[in-house]
Parts: sequence; C-alpha cells; structure tokens
Amino acid sequence: MPRLDNAFLESILDEVRPLLARGQVASYIPALAQVPADQLGVAVCTHDGQLLTAGDASQRFSIQSISKVLSLTVAMTRYSEQDLWQRVGKDPSGQPFNSLVQLEMEQGIPRNPFINAGALVVCDMLQSRLSAPRQQMLTLVRRLSGVEDIHYDRQVASSELAHSARNAAIAWLMKSFDNFNNDVNTVLENYFHYCALSMSCEELARCFRYLISPELCKVLFRQELNHRQVSHINALMMTSGMYNAAGEFAWRVGLPAKSGVGGGIVAIVPGKMSIAVWSPALDQFGNSLAGTAVLEHISDRLAFSVF
Amino acid sequence: MPRLDNAFLESILDEVRPLLARGQVASYIPALAQVPADQLGVAVCTHDGQLLTAGDASQRFSIQSISKVLSLTVAMTRYSEQDLWQRVGKDPSGQPFNSLVQLEMEQGIPRNPFINAGALVVCDMLQSRLSAPRQQMLTLVRRLSGVEDIHYDRQVASSELAHSARNAAIAWLMKSFDNFNNDVNTVLENYFHYCALSMSCEELARCFRYLISPELCKVLFRQELNHRQVSHINALMMTSGMYNAAGEFAWRVGLPAKSGVGGGIVAIVPGKMSIAVWSPALDQFGNSLAGTAVLEHISDRLAFSVF
Amino acid sequence: MPRLDNAFLESILDEVRPLLARGQVASYIPALAQVPADQLGVAVCTHDGQLLTAGDASQRFSIQSISKVLSLTVAMTRYSEQDLWQRVGKDPSGQPFNSLVQLEMEQGIPRNPFINAGALVVCDMLQSRLSAPRQQMLTLVRRLSGVEDIHYDRQVASSELAHSARNAAIAWLMKSFDNFNNDVNTVLENYFHYCALSMSCEELARCFRYLISPELCKVLFRQELNHRQVSHINALMMTSGMYNAAGEFAWRVGLPAKSGVGGGIVAIVPGKMSIAVWSPALDQFGNSLAGTAVLEHISDRLAFSVF
Amino acid sequence: MPRLDNAFLESILDEVRPLLARGQVASYIPALAQVPADQLGVAVCTHDGQLLTAGDASQRFSIQSISKVLSLTVAMTRYSEQDLWQRVGKDPSGQPFNSLVQLEMEQGIPRNPFINAGALVVCDMLQSRLSAPRQQMLTLVRRLSGVEDIHYDRQVASSELAHSARNAAIAWLMKSFDNFNNDVNTVLENYFHYCALSMSCEELARCFRYLISPELCKVLFRQELNHRQVSHINALMMTSGMYNAAGEFAWRVGLPAKSGVGGGIVAIVPGKMSIAVWSPALDQFGNSLAGTAVLEHISDRLAFSVF
Repeated sequence: MPRLDNAFLESILDEVRPLLARGQVASYIPALAQVPADQLGVAVCTHDGQLLTAGDASQRFSIQSISKVLSLTVAMTRYSEQDLWQRVGKDPSGQPFNSLVQLEMEQGIPRNPFINAGALVVCDMLQSRLSAPRQQMLTLVRRLSGVEDIHYDRQVASSELAHSARNAAIAWLMKSFDNFNNDVNTVLENYFHYCALSMSCEELARCFRYLISPELCKVLFRQELNHRQVSHINALMMTSGMYNAAGEFAWRVGLPAKSGVGGGIVAIVPGKMSIAVWSPALDQFGNSLAGTAVLEHISDRLAFSVF
Repeated sequence: MPRLDNAFLESILDEVRPLLARGQVASYIPALAQVPADQLGVAVCTHDGQLLTAGDASQRFSIQSISKVLSLTVAMTRYSEQDLWQRVGKDPSGQPFNSLVQLEMEQGIPRNPFINAGALVVCDMLQSRLSAPRQQMLTLVRRLSGVEDIHYDRQVASSELAHSARNAAIAWLMKSFDNFNNDVNTVLENYFHYCALSMSCEELARCFRYLISPELCKVLFRQELNHRQVSHINALMMTSGMYNAAGEFAWRVGLPAKSGVGGGIVAIVPGKMSIAVWSPALDQFGNSLAGTAVLEHISDRLAFSVF
Repeated sequence: MPRLDNAFLESILDEVRPLLARGQVASYIPALAQVPADQLGVAVCTHDGQLLTAGDASQRFSIQSISKVLSLTVAMTRYSEQDLWQRVGKDPSGQPFNSLVQLEMEQGIPRNPFINAGALVVCDMLQSRLSAPRQQMLTLVRRLSGVEDIHYDRQVASSELAHSARNAAIAWLMKSFDNFNNDVNTVLENYFHYCALSMSCEELARCFRYLISPELCKVLFRQELNHRQVSHINALMMTSGMYNAAGEFAWRVGLPAKSGVGGGIVAIVPGKMSIAVWSPALDQFGNSLAGTAVLEHISDRLAFSVF
Repeated sequence: MPRLDNAFLESILDEVRPLLARGQVASYIPALAQVPADQLGVAVCTHDGQLLTAGDASQRFSIQSISKVLSLTVAMTRYSEQDLWQRVGKDPSGQPFNSLVQLEMEQGIPRNPFINAGALVVCDMLQSRLSAPRQQMLTLVRRLSGVEDIHYDRQVASSELAHSARNAAIAWLMKSFDNFNNDVNTVLENYFHYCALSMSCEELARCFRYLISPELCKVLFRQELNHRQVSHINALMMTSGMYNAAGEFAWRVGLPAKSGVGGGIVAIVPGKMSIAVWSPALDQFGNSLAGTAVLEHISDRLAFSVF
C-alpha cells in the first residue's frame, strides 16, 4: 500500500487531470459560472492534525451545499433529537435536490437535511434559536478551521438571492404545511450566506476534522455534541450526501461525503482523516467530476472504503 | 466494551423482547401471515468462522428479499460490470419497494437491484445465462452455508406466485422498455423461489460470510468475484438495503444490511463478522422491528458502526 | 317539459334542500368557515335579459375561483392568443387545483387558467398591462352586472393573504421557470382580491351573460373579444372548470361551468342563458354539493345538456 | 353559412391537405407504420341517415382507440351504472394514455374508460358477461354500420399482441388492486381485436349515429341504453376523448370526439350528425393532425361548436 503523503496526493491529481476537460461548471448564478474549470486541489487532515495537500488546495471557492452539514451540526447542538427530526427525515429522497414533488406528497416534511428543502428547515430552526445566525456560523467555521479571515463571498450570496425563486417556492410550500416558522426572506438570506462561505480545501479539511471520531468531536464541541452524533452525521452523508448519486458514490468511494455545486467535496475516513477535494466542473448529478475521481483513487489505493 | 459471546447475545434479546408485541407480521400471502410474531433469534459468524447464537437462531423462516443479495451476487459472477449496470442502477429509489411510478419515469431502468424491479431484472439476467437457475441457487446457498438440506418452501413460493400481480406488472413494464428478455412467468417463478428460500439465522450468518472481507470472498468464490465487489455489494446494502428506511437504519445501526419481509435481516460488520437476526413482526417500512433493535444494540455496545 | 320560471326554480331548490346537511363548508380561512351551510340560491339570466331567481339569490358570497373566468376574460382582451397561451395551457390537469407536482414536471407552465397556478399567471399578465388591476376588475364586474356597489370583501381578501403560503409557493415555482414577471406579493394581493369579490347569484348570473352567445358578448365587450372567444372560454369551463371533477360534472350536468370554494357555481346554457347557484357546503372535490345538484336537476328537466 | 354537401367537404379537405406533410404516422407496431401518410377522408352521417363523403372516405383503417367508445357502450348495456362506475372513473387523467403512475396512486381505478387502463377494465367486464366478446362486437358494429363484411385486421391484432407489454403491465397492476378479474391474456386479445377493427370513415360515421340523439339511440339500441346515456358518452368524449389534448380540442372544435392512433377521429354534433375523419399522421398527442384540422374547419364554418 502506498504511503499517504503530499507526493502521493500529487500523483493522484496527475492521474485525474485529464478528466478536467469533462464536466460542466455550475451556471445557475453568474458568480459560479465564471470560475475556471481547470482547477484541482486536495487536502487531507489526519486524526492527529497533520495537513497534507496537493494542487490548488489553498484556493478558496464557494462551499455551497457542503455548508448543509455545518448548519445541521449547529442545529444538533441546539435542538433535541426529537424536536429536530420531527421536522426533517433521515432517508434518501431519490429525487433531484431542488424538487417539490416529494415535498408536496409528504406534507412538507423534507426527506433529509441535505436536500434544499431539508437544509431550509434547518436554517429556519437556527433562525428561531440563534441570535445572529450568520455571525455565529462564521465564528464556528473560523474556530474549527483555525483561520480567522474566513468570510462569506457577498457577491455569491447576493447573486444567489437574486436567483432564489426555486428555494423560495420550497420554503413557502413548507410554510403551507406549517413546517416553516420564520420570514422566508430572512431564512433564505442566511441559507445563501452559508452556501457562499468561501473556503479552501485546506480550510475545509481542517474544519471537518470533528467528524473523524467521537474523541475529536468532543475536543472541538465539548458537551454540545454527544459521541453518537458524529456517527449520525456521517451516516446521513453516506446515504444522502451526494445528491441523487449517493449509491453510486458509496459504490465507487465507500466513504461518507458531502458535495457542493461549487465543485467541493468533503469526505470522512472514519477514525482516520477528513479529506477535501475541489474541482469546479460537475457531473450530471451536480458532484465534482474530477473531485469524485480523486476520492475514488485515494480510497482505492489506501483501502479506505468502510465496506 | 462487552465481550461478544452467546451470553451477550442473549442479554440483547432479553432487552429487545418487549418490542415483539409491536410491529405487524407480513400478511400479503397467507403462508407468511401464519408465522407466530413472538419469535426472535440472532446468529453471528465471525471472520474466522466461529458461530455465536441466541434465541430462535436455528428456526428456519422465509428469507424473502434477503435473497436479492444472493441473486445479485450470482449475476456479478456471470456478467461484466458494464453489462450488468446498464440494466439496473445503484442509487436509492426513495419510493416504496414495489412502486412502478419511478420505473415508468426512468424508462424501465430500476434504481437499484434491491427493489423488486431491480431484483426482477437480475433474475431475468440469470435466466439468460444459467441452465437451471433454481437448482444453482440452492447449490450455492448450500455450499456457502455448509448445510445440505436447505430447500425452497414450496408452499410459500406457490402462494407468492398466486399473488404475483404487482410483480408481473413490474416485469411487463420493464419488458415494454426492452429491459426484460425472458418469459415473465418463468422469471417470476425463479424470483419467488429465491424469496422462498427457507433458512435459519445460523445458516444465513454463515452464508453471508463472503461479504465480511475480500479474503473470505476469495476463499468462497475464487476468481468469480474480485476484491472490490465485496465492497460494492456492501455499499449497495448500506444505501438501498433496508427498503425506504436505509437512511434511518444507517443512522441507527451504521452497518450494511438487507432485510426481508419474512422478518430476517442480514448485516455485515466489514472485516469482522456477519450477523443474521430474525423476528417476524415488521415496522412501517417492512423491516423487522425487533430485529432492527437487536442490530442497533449490538452495533452500539460493540461500536460496530462503520461511521 | 316544464316551464322555466321562478316557481320551477323554487321547486328544484325544495328537492335539493335535503342535501344541505351533507358537504363541508370551506375551512381553510376563517372568513369562509363562518358562512352558514344551510343557504341555497339560484338565479337565471336569459339571453334577452330576463332574471329569474329562487332562494337566497340576492345574498352575497365570496365568488372565489369563479373570478378566474373573469381574470382570464380580461387577459384575453389585452393579450394576443399567442402571447397568452404560451404561458398557460388549455388542458385538464388531472391534479388537485393547488398542486405543484405537475407544474414542476411541466417546467412552470400551468395546464390551464382555472387551476391556481394558471390563474396566478393570468394575474401576473394583468399586472403587467393594467394600470390598476383591482379597480379595473371592479369596474368591469359592475358594468357587466349593472350593479354599482359590488365590492371586494376586504376581510376575506386579507384572511386569504394571511394564508397564502401555498399560492406563494406556486408563484415562486413559476418564477423559477421564468413564467412569472411581477412581484409575487403584489400579484397575490390582486389574485386574492379577485377571489374575494362579493356577489350574489343575481349579480353573477347577470355578470356572466356575456358567455351566453357571441352576440351578447359583442354587445358587452365590443371589439375587445371576438366571436370565437366566447366558445373558447366555455370550452375551457367544460374541460377544466370544476376542479378535478370536470368529467363527472359534464356527465351529470352537461354544461360549461366554473365553481368556487365559496360555494358558488356559474353555468352557461349556450345560446340560452347563464345560471348562478350558491350553497356553501362543498363535496370532496371542492364544488358546491347542493349547487351541483340544482344544476343537474335544471339541466335534466329542461334538456339543457349540450350533449 | 355554407351548405353542407360533398363539395363543401371536398373544399375543406383541399384546404387541409398541406398539413399532410406534418405529423407522424404511429410506429409502435409495424402494421400501422406502413400506412401511407398522405391519405385523407371524411364522412358525415346526418340525423336522418344521409351520408356525405369526401376524399378517402371508403378506405378502411385500424380504428384503434375509437373502439373504446364501442366497448364502453356495450358495457353500459350489460352493467348497472353503479357496478360499472365503481371500477372506472369519469374524469380527465391529465396523464399520457398508457401511464401507470396515476393508476398506482389511485389504487388501480383508472380515471376514465378512454385511457388504456380504463378500456382494459371495460374489456375485463365484457369478458365476464359476454359469451363471445369478439363475435358480439363484430355483430354490433355490422348492425350499426349496416355493413356485413366488417372484420378485425388479424395482422394488426397479432402485431399489437406481440407488442402488448405496456398494456399487460397495466392489466396486472389493476389485478394487484383487485380491479381485474379475468385472464390477462384473454382480455388483451379481445382489447387488441377491438382496436384492430378495420373500418372506413363511411362505416364509422354510420356506426356512431347512435350518439347523435336519444331518439336515434333508442331506434338502434332499444331498451338497452336509456336516453341519458347518449349524453353521458358524449360528455366523456368531450372531457377525455382526445388523449391529453381534450381541452385543446374542445377549444378548437367544440365537439365530443374520440380519436385513435390509426388516424381516425369520430366527432358528434349533438342532435345533428356524426362525423368521421381519417388521416394517418398524428400530432404530438397522438391525434390525427390533419383530421383535427378538418373537424375544426367544419365546426367553424358551420358553427357546430356546442359552446
């Protein structure tokens, strides 16, 4: 088995680079569409805090739906299991991430917190309990990453807000089923700011260390998260973290992961490390095409699959 | 951490027994409806072949959808990856296991091999390549379990065939999309026989040892399955093995598993062991209610979750 | 065949009155829920302008979705056929009137102008072309009815606006498909005001005279509507005017008609007369239960069915 | 207003002929795909039995779904209203004619007798009550048309049976909901034979005279159909007779009608006449493109719309 070091990561990137030409950069908002497609980076943060990187690992990008793991994590620190999970499910949706079909049929209860509807419910819950949800998320992310100057990309956030019709529809539909309590616009603003967090692979890998093990989680979150909740979040990432391709990803990579349409993916090797990859061009499901390949190669060479 | 032995398993069963009153025995065919609800058994087969049991572990029952893992496994030995996976997907369906809605929308390609449509495609493929699909399945199961007198429960099989309208509809719908090649009735007969395999927890735990590790798989299947295919099957079980509650099960138990409406569940602790539990009364998703609880307790006490 | 006069109408109402106990008054907004269920009225306006009435024919009620015919009519005077019908279809939806499922699948183009989505698109179009959409609707309705003091029921309008989440979701979903151009709230306010028009059967029967024949339409609308457009509106009412029971209604009554959840129904006997009935208790499809029966009896006794 | 005679019909055909190049001949079975697209015929049968024709009015073609009106008619002579309409609805489906989605959601009760599922239920009912369903249909059609040598096109019937997977799926799905009582294959054979009735516009126009008026119906069916049932069938044709374009057709033509994928359409001008048109090339909804245009022109010039 190869040694996991920077050179190993570089070699993986070299192998994957031919894929950069394939895939499609997200185009639904101008701010994302302008990101050059030929970027590729990876960062690994081991259980003992060592950081390995290759490629454009220090280049910041829009973390988009990766933030859904963070908002869920915060919600888990503020709500009882019962209160949280009566408003959102834990199962794969089998539907596109922004679909309203299932949401209408299931009376406004989203299938899981990683589709848009579910993340909006989570943000609605945060709005009810946090005094300054945007500032508090920044504070958390800075603390977890150990980087003080992480910010929201305001251009991305306002561009998303200007194209928020579909998410507004989702929020209003949930409101019609009494599963949305706050002002739709206020919650959308928070939601889009979270999506517009601008972070690098290095920062993401460090930030998500708390999902590597219960011990690390305890160090980073104290009593706020109990030892089972790390497993819970990883389980959700495994079954619902990769949009409608969770099964395919589990098959190829075998790790819990969450992707964003900015081209980032965070994956966890339980007990061992967190990995962040980034490449802006997406496959048909909205997951980074080259990023998925990087994770597949790493997992394969190092036998990281949990299965 | 407690020691895994028969006494430990007994203690788990004792804890779970109060749940036996809840849940509902499958009633869609008379042969299943008659099974007494108060039975509960568990068997563990370790990587080195040790067998631990408790409760009704030697009582045989109808393995039902657990057979879908076996038929998939056989198909993987007879078809190239490409040929197999162009006819069935790898992703969670988000729909009831016997639904035709998604199948129609997705042009006759089932989402995964563990919903009925997917398993029927797999059986159709076996019919095309095996000379005697029912006999060969028996041979395989007997070899894997090391038990010669495993049989199909003919009463169950014919009872299912007499209530096969929904599955016939699924097969014909796939035929209309050119994703079903053999005679519908012939394939349904094989499918229902596989479902009607009558096995005990002991036999199931031994039978599914091949999913514990690539090494064991190699011992048991020789060149027929390569080392990645064990991971592949486990990944599919994790994301799609528990009907529409795969996410909830991953959350609670954290292990790849496959259930059947006969009340059996097979779970794999990768690298360590296979577990078979059985209790006939089902939860709203069609999974054994007490059986799930047994697995949850075992996984929790012994920190078996892969996450 | 009986003679159509007030006494005939009275006799029909007497026959139908036992049905008043069945059905359910609309309860989704308090203002509607308070309307007593035992009211029943009918008014007929003949081609030559004669008015026949029985029961609570001068009692005003909330016309609700009957207004969808009026807003469509106004839109037809302001938009070319091409411009109008590229944004909304002409076919039955087969879905509940407030569903988003089909709307998402069909890319934000509502099936017809009499489901909520379609009426909202029409209101959006009116907002783009009318300087004061609410005042102009009042002016039109007063002119057609010949009654100056017709008003919006402001209590109903604001009650609906306070429960507008579902319709907001529909509007936002259409906006996400670029089929909604104006401010959602502004259009919703207009839409709910139209729904909150407070009119009696007498006023409605007179108001809808313009659909009796091309000649009457020409008298009332001059060049604004051409002779085919009367047929067009009646055709739409026949196939999509009674929510999800258009087929059943065509079967039983055989007349183009439009109902509202306030319990009103307007029906047209082409070439002969307009009929307005009212009774607040609704059947399972949202149509006035006793009102439908009144129309069925009238149509049956006088052989009014167009079929 | 022009005089309705053969020359008038010829002039309409001349106007419409340029449309023959558009549209697409049905291709799902070879026997239909071979029909030349440039054929166009029309026949009118007046209330007093006069027959007017133009173009290829004596050319026989496969009547396909037009037969659904005939099978429904026979069922109405053999079943009480209650018994018949508890097994099939009367409302537009809003779905493709061969879809299973709604059928599954609505527990195996088809929306109306003119989609495939509904017609199959009707054929299932006929199989339960008629001794020789195929022979009896021939006898009826011959009697109504006054033509003794009308036959099933056996090549079409067997070609359809060889491509019957989708309809088999529909039948089996209804069987799974206990809404299908006879052998699926037997009923499919009847169903496809009905579809394969080979008739000309002349024969169809004469055959459907019974829907022109209650009086004609009484003459042709005696006590078997009561006076309201003619209206009922026409109402169903209006709301559900033209596949998913019933609203558009009512808008353009304003007459109850039923089309078939063989390119035929039968329309009724209540009280006046029956019209049969034929041209094999279909629009996107499966209705004869030129045939619809012929009906639109006739209805428009002679003010035949019921609205």
